[in-house]
Amino acid sequence: MAEPALAADLAEIRALIAHLPGPDLDAGSAAAEREAQLTKPAGALGRLEELAAWLAAWQARHPPRVEHPRTVVFAGNHGVAARGVSAYPAAVTVQMVQNFIAGGAAVNQLCRTIDADLRVYEMNLDTPTGDIVDGPAMSEEECARALAYGMMAVEPGIDALAVGEMGIANTTVAAALCLGLFGGEAADWTGPGTGVSGEALANKRQVVAAAVARHRAEMGDPFDVLRRLGGLEFAAMAGAILAARMGRVPVVLDGFCSAAAAAVLHAVDPRALDHCVAGHVSAEPGHRRLLERIGKRPLLDLGMRLGEASGATLALAILKAAAACHAGMATFAEAGVSERS
Amino acid sequence: MAEPALAADLAEIRALIAHLPGPDLDAGSAAAEREAQLTKPAGALGRLEELAAWLAAWQARHPPRVEHPRTVVFAGNHGVAARGVSAYPAAVTVQMVQNFIAGGAAVNQLCRTIDADLRVYEMNLDTPTGDIVDGPAMSEEECARALAYGMMAVEPGIDALAVGEMGIANTTVAAALCLGLFGGEAADWTGPGTGVSGEALANKRQVVAAAVARHRAEMGDPFDVLRRLGGLEFAAMAGAILAARMGRVPVVLDGFCSAAAAAVLHAVDPRALDHCVAGHVSAEPGHRRLLERIGKRPLLDLGMRLGEASGATLALAILKAAAACHAGMATFAEAGVSERS
Repeated sequence: MAEPALAADLAEIRALIAHLPGPDLDAGSAAAEREAQLTKPAGALGRLEELAAWLAAWQARHPPRVEHPRTVVFAGNHGVAARGVSAYPAAVTVQMVQNFIAGGAAVNQLCRTIDADLRVYEMNLDTPTGDIVDGPAMSEEECARALAYGMMAVEPGIDALAVGEMGIANTTVAAALCLGLFGGEAADWTGPGTGVSGEALANKRQVVAAAVARHRAEMGDPFDVLRRLGGLEFAAMAGAILAARMGRVPVVLDGFCSAAAAAVLHAVDPRALDHCVAGHVSAEPGHRRLLERIGKRPLLDLGMRLGEASGATLALAILKAAAACHAGMATFAEAGVSERS
Repeated sequence: MAEPALAADLAEIRALIAHLPGPDLDAGSAAAEREAQLTKPAGALGRLEELAAWLAAWQARHPPRVEHPRTVVFAGNHGVAARGVSAYPAAVTVQMVQNFIAGGAAVNQLCRTIDADLRVYEMNLDTPTGDIVDGPAMSEEECARALAYGMMAVEPGIDALAVGEMGIANTTVAAALCLGLFGGEAADWTGPGTGVSGEALANKRQVVAAAVARHRAEMGDPFDVLRRLGGLEFAAMAGAILAARMGRVPVVLDGFCSAAAAAVLHAVDPRALDHCVAGHVSAEPGHRRLLERIGKRPLLDLGMRLGEASGATLALAILKAAAACHAGMATFAEAGVSERS
């Protein structure tokens, strides 16, 4: 563990985040200029107009397009699952991956409806990460590799990325990450997940508190928090978000776990998430709190709490609509429509 | 005006609303039964699950489908526009209809993105309705004809209907309808519309108050309120909503004007809107208040305020997603996924 060469990998990622590209201000200005000429009262498309300008700035082109979106689902298993924190057995992670491959999960139907490309990434499902109550989830090497693995999900040609996960016990991990990054009480961040309540929920909260207490004194920077309290799919999501920034691909975050992975980057530099939008706010209570912390206003609020990028994928429909209105609408001059009297 | 034969037309519509079909409870039960078996924690798709059951009950079939949605836009002109209540000249109504026909409006791009069929209905744009400050907007005959005209928008084969409008000055009319139906102050219901503010907004509020004061003593049932304070596109939207109920087509309401037309039916019988969902809540302040009055929780809240069925059409994407998840997901048994431990 933590040999110099491997530590260097995380060091490279730390260096990367110090040199992230910013928005393309010319493309953003071009979007604002065109928006003002389109056949509607100024501002009448609300957040669709904001999204069009945001897409232009982060795709670095005008007009922006959302024609080849991709949904990525990273799946991981967690040592802490053995502590009875989930309503489902850990075997469900691999079973659900098989369901994704067979086309039977919610995210498959959503990708089909919205015409998004779905990629599912199994991450050593036979080898859960370390139990975070006893020690770090991952070595530096494992964490760096998982980050790099997530980066590979961003390939040329995709123009928006919905980032989600599958992993029994991972709302426990997300709660631990949030408690580690932001502090507060375990109860602030720990909710029902797939549906635990009563004594099981009380146990889950104790597990989250114990995990953070175990690492508190040794925790370093946010990447070290990720390594200690996170998991493979969290590191991969963070990697995908970073790679999307480098590749000029706007990102749609999914639920609590997706936002927790993003929060690691936000804790390093809040600007690291400027190319990300929150696809939805889930019914998991910690998610709303977390979105406030990372300064994201969700596009959808439909009481979803499934993970597997379901909310983010549904929100891709809003991005598509925003880009289509911006690119396809006629201007007042083109349509011969009178402007304000 | 108001000859016996023509009054009978409105009487027929009054009779119709007394015998509206209810939900198909068998289809609703079948949806609930299937939902419980799908590969996700119970309730994890939130409102998508509610929508699937609602679609089944009002389409009277299981599984429900949203494969052939239609967006309808009724366009009308208003005598009250001459009172300077809009930021735009009345000529914009017909210009925007031309823009719809040419494919250049926001709703065209949204229908293309979401794969909805768009129909635009011009309603005597050369002949605005009566100025509601001076007298009734429509005769009984005109109102009944406009209702019947709207009914024709519901044809066999469509499986969801987004209902919207275009008409310069029609947020003034919607505000008058709401004040007539629900009472309160003119300021409760009167907002910026396409973008009036300051003195122009104060004038708009006075116009709304004056219109309702002019008719208050003579107003009869909600259809009479519609005839006096409404307009052709409002009557047509109410007709389309009624015909959709008869034809087993779930309806997505759009913004303030669309909800005001629906509110006429709600005032007759609150159950008359059980087959309707609010596609979004707009930035027009009266809309949120109105949705509370008619008991509808919006699917989207994106600060839109364009009308032309734009919010309702965007919400069709949510209905499509709900139907697709419900119909296409594997059950726990089919996928070999373990249930709760």
